[in-house]
Amino acid sequence: MPAPVSSASIIRMDNGHATGDQAILVTEEPLEIRLGHGPLDDRREMRLSVTMRTPGQDVELATGFLFTEGIISGVDQLLRVEHCESVKEEERGNVVRAELHPSVELDLEKLQRNFYTTSSCGVCGKGSIEAVHVQCRQGLVPFGPVDPAVVASLPDRMRDAQTLFKHTGGIHAAALFDHSGKLLLLREDVGRHNAVDKAIGALLMDRLPAANCQLLVSGRAGFELVQKCVVAGIPLMAAVGAPSSLAVRLARESGLTLIGFLRGDKFNIYTSRPTPGASAG
Amino acid sequence: MPAPVSSASIIRMDNGHATGDQAILVTEEPLEIRLGHGPLDDRREMRLSVTMRTPGQDVELATGFLFTEGIISGVDQLLRVEHCESVKEEERGNVVRAELHPSVELDLEKLQRNFYTTSSCGVCGKGSIEAVHVQCRQGLVPFGPVDPAVVASLPDRMRDAQTLFKHTGGIHAAALFDHSGKLLLLREDVGRHNAVDKAIGALLMDRLPAANCQLLVSGRAGFELVQKCVVAGIPLMAAVGAPSSLAVRLARESGLTLIGFLRGDKFNIYTSRPTPGASAG
Repeated sequence: MPAPVSSASIIRMDNGHATGDQAILVTEEPLEIRLGHGPLDDRREMRLSVTMRTPGQDVELATGFLFTEGIISGVDQLLRVEHCESVKEEERGNVVRAELHPSVELDLEKLQRNFYTTSSCGVCGKGSIEAVHVQCRQGLVPFGPVDPAVVASLPDRMRDAQTLFKHTGGIHAAALFDHSGKLLLLREDVGRHNAVDKAIGALLMDRLPAANCQLLVSGRAGFELVQKCVVAGIPLMAAVGAPSSLAVRLARESGLTLIGFLRGDKFNIYTSRPTPGASAG
Repeated sequence: MPAPVSSASIIRMDNGHATGDQAILVTEEPLEIRLGHGPLDDRREMRLSVTMRTPGQDVELATGFLFTEGIISGVDQLLRVEHCESVKEEERGNVVRAELHPSVELDLEKLQRNFYTTSSCGVCGKGSIEAVHVQCRQGLVPFGPVDPAVVASLPDRMRDAQTLFKHTGGIHAAALFDHSGKLLLLREDVGRHNAVDKAIGALLMDRLPAANCQLLVSGRAGFELVQKCVVAGIPLMAAVGAPSSLAVRLARESGLTLIGFLRGDKFNIYTSRPTPGASAG
């Protein structure tokens, strides 16, 4: 498998002056996720998706993706997830196969169609939110009052653990914390969706209770990231950047606490009614 | 069609103090892109993709997407692109249909499969780059020497034109400039790929020569954004953030000039050999 970072010769420009230098780049490589029953069999298995990701924690990424996209409803539905050995030399490390439990039905045709367009929910904000609710069997357990001091402490704790970011300056992160703000795990990836899928995949594989977690993402809070949180049962999501309109709607309708623009001890809560759960003021 | 921004009641937290306030959110809504021949006919047309986008310039987005994904090789292959009227009320404005010229073959089965996995190129960095080269009929016309003063001026010029960002603080932008650094057009979207597809779609629809352009993106330079530039024939791409390993490889193998970490008069050139084309130093 390729390393998560590599070195490249570059020219650094500073006020018109050019200097040759080396830079550390974050690795981006395709990962193909295959899905099937029983032994490897090209006719009976599906090439589900290809995502551009940073190599590492591929099994977590595939597990998290299958779960947050609603293809499996829990890790018990997977017999194993592993890198395929029967691929071309140059593809080795870039193909992961998930083997479903025999009791899990695999509707290849349904999967081949688009998740949104084939749902009866319609192509609109309301439809997108309904599709998430159809996918979620259980509602979220509310996070409860927000402790401003804990929330404000999360970005520094995440940054301290962002090894790849320190070297490259350009990779997304998703970090899971417990209620007290203790870092449980952090995952980094060139794709922000992948970072969240890796974190949720790790949570599932370790059988940690999602209801006790809060998730911090390094970028913005778009609909699909909030969707992954809701599906995983994580009741609070905080983002360093802005949330979108549909992310806020989904959070409000799902009972997820959504925080944005988290910078220092300033942040916005998008899901609280007039008086927030806790104000230290 | 929904407005590109909307207002929401939020709680602003500052050092533990909570204040009720209004925030402007960027709108995120699904857009379905359909593809077909002749009059609207559900049996003969394909629901190609659904992307979460900020409403506005949907026709440009669909045109740019079809082109940069290699589904059409030019706007001459499209008879028209327009919003579908024959949809449910709540979907109105969220479905765009592209009508292909009768001479353009539409291989529904091929399109339904994944672009990468069904190419003969393999699931690896080399394969991803080969797939782009297969897609590009013509090579890039090199941009030529980089003028540091012009490059350094681009972010401010982009920021001045970022209307939606000023209100929301959270939306991606893609801006096209000519060689002298004059802003040609700017597009904003909640999705960074969409912002680039809108900009390239506008370029195509206005029949502007891509070879005279340089593109600035507000985020990082990932493989797929560089791919869109290469396919469109834009010879220079600059990013405020970091490029990935595969973005740098694709840029080098395609003759695209790739600039990253563009902040003030500091930036990195990832595609120049020892001496850059122009140094004002």
